[in-house]
Amino acid sequence: MNERLKKQKEFLLEVDKMKQIYRQTHIRGGSRQENDAEHSWHLALMAFLLEEYANEPVDITRVMKMVLIHDLVEVDAGDTYAYDTAGNATKRQREEAAADRIFGILPEDQGKMLRQLWEEFEAYETPEARFAHVMDNFQPMTLNDDNGGGDWKRHQVKKSQILKRNEKTSSGSREIWSCMEEMIQENIEKGNIIDE
Amino acid sequence: MNERLKKQKEFLLEVDKMKQIYRQTHIRGGSRQENDAEHSWHLALMAFLLEEYANEPVDITRVMKMVLIHDLVEVDAGDTYAYDTAGNATKRQREEAAADRIFGILPEDQGKMLRQLWEEFEAYETPEARFAHVMDNFQPMTLNDDNGGGDWKRHQVKKSQILKRNEKTSSGSREIWSCMEEMIQENIEKGNIIDE
Repeated sequence: MNERLKKQKEFLLEVDKMKQIYRQTHIRGGSRQENDAEHSWHLALMAFLLEEYANEPVDITRVMKMVLIHDLVEVDAGDTYAYDTAGNATKRQREEAAADRIFGILPEDQGKMLRQLWEEFEAYETPEARFAHVMDNFQPMTLNDDNGGGDWKRHQVKKSQILKRNEKTSSGSREIWSCMEEMIQENIEKGNIIDE
Repeated sequence: MNERLKKQKEFLLEVDKMKQIYRQTHIRGGSRQENDAEHSWHLALMAFLLEEYANEPVDITRVMKMVLIHDLVEVDAGDTYAYDTAGNATKRQREEAAADRIFGILPEDQGKMLRQLWEEFEAYETPEARFAHVMDNFQPMTLNDDNGGGDWKRHQVKKSQILKRNEKTSSGSREIWSCMEEMIQENIEKGNIIDE
């Protein structure tokens, strides 16, 4: 086998660990937590079906690639829950070390390409990154809403925390943010989200 | 919420069931079977990293969309193991009924678009479909090989069955097929695949 394909194959086996990184969100029905591989698949599918709601035109291929790889660093750094203050303080440092190692398994050109995609996602500045973040926030909210808000209740999540996390969501998609605002309001009324 | 987004959201919740459709292949390490959502994520990531090995130029966006949706019909039809003769006899009929229902949840234009993508994958005639099938065969073989060939041993798989299933793989990528041939040979030598 050629050396390049060997490295690519090694990388693809290494990131199989995404199937064992569990998030706080539960799959539909609530029987178990969702893992990063499933979450990333769901986001990529959503991205191309919901492209029409992006505020600005987006390169959808780039968005799809971005969401497919946005959580790869969690293979080493683990999932940091959106509302975990202590975890989020060290998140960037842990994830940078992970990016060095994991993307470093690939041939250099591809390692750089994935690193750039990930940095672009994290920087949250391009239309593609903004739309990718809409997917990353809309998907767990939709599941949690459908599951009776259990994930919010379990972590006693406050409206202010959700609004803080989503402060830029409307910059990616006003239409989807408006749908999310409806869900937030309904879940406050049901007592699933704390409106302090 | 607008009616169109409502249908899209319903579809995206419905296909969450992919996370509970288990395949015969095991995840790396062998601790459990892989589900369709994880498998589809892995294929989409592979597709864009291994694009350079396609025999012909491919529209990689189309390939990625195709692999993301190629197993959606299994939400109703279930996974049919590659070497299950009885199951494969009724597979097409079960999957067509599933496609009608599942793609039918979406707004009509998008339902048609996904149906066409799925039919294109199944027809195995375009460069994109050929390359998507390479991914669909290379990914489980790589995992199974890395896991010590347990899935082949469990099902007493014969070399002839693997060659039959892969009779068109080299038409999508000669380079990847050559890597697969090496894995097949090594697993015959280890006694994991029966060379009758």
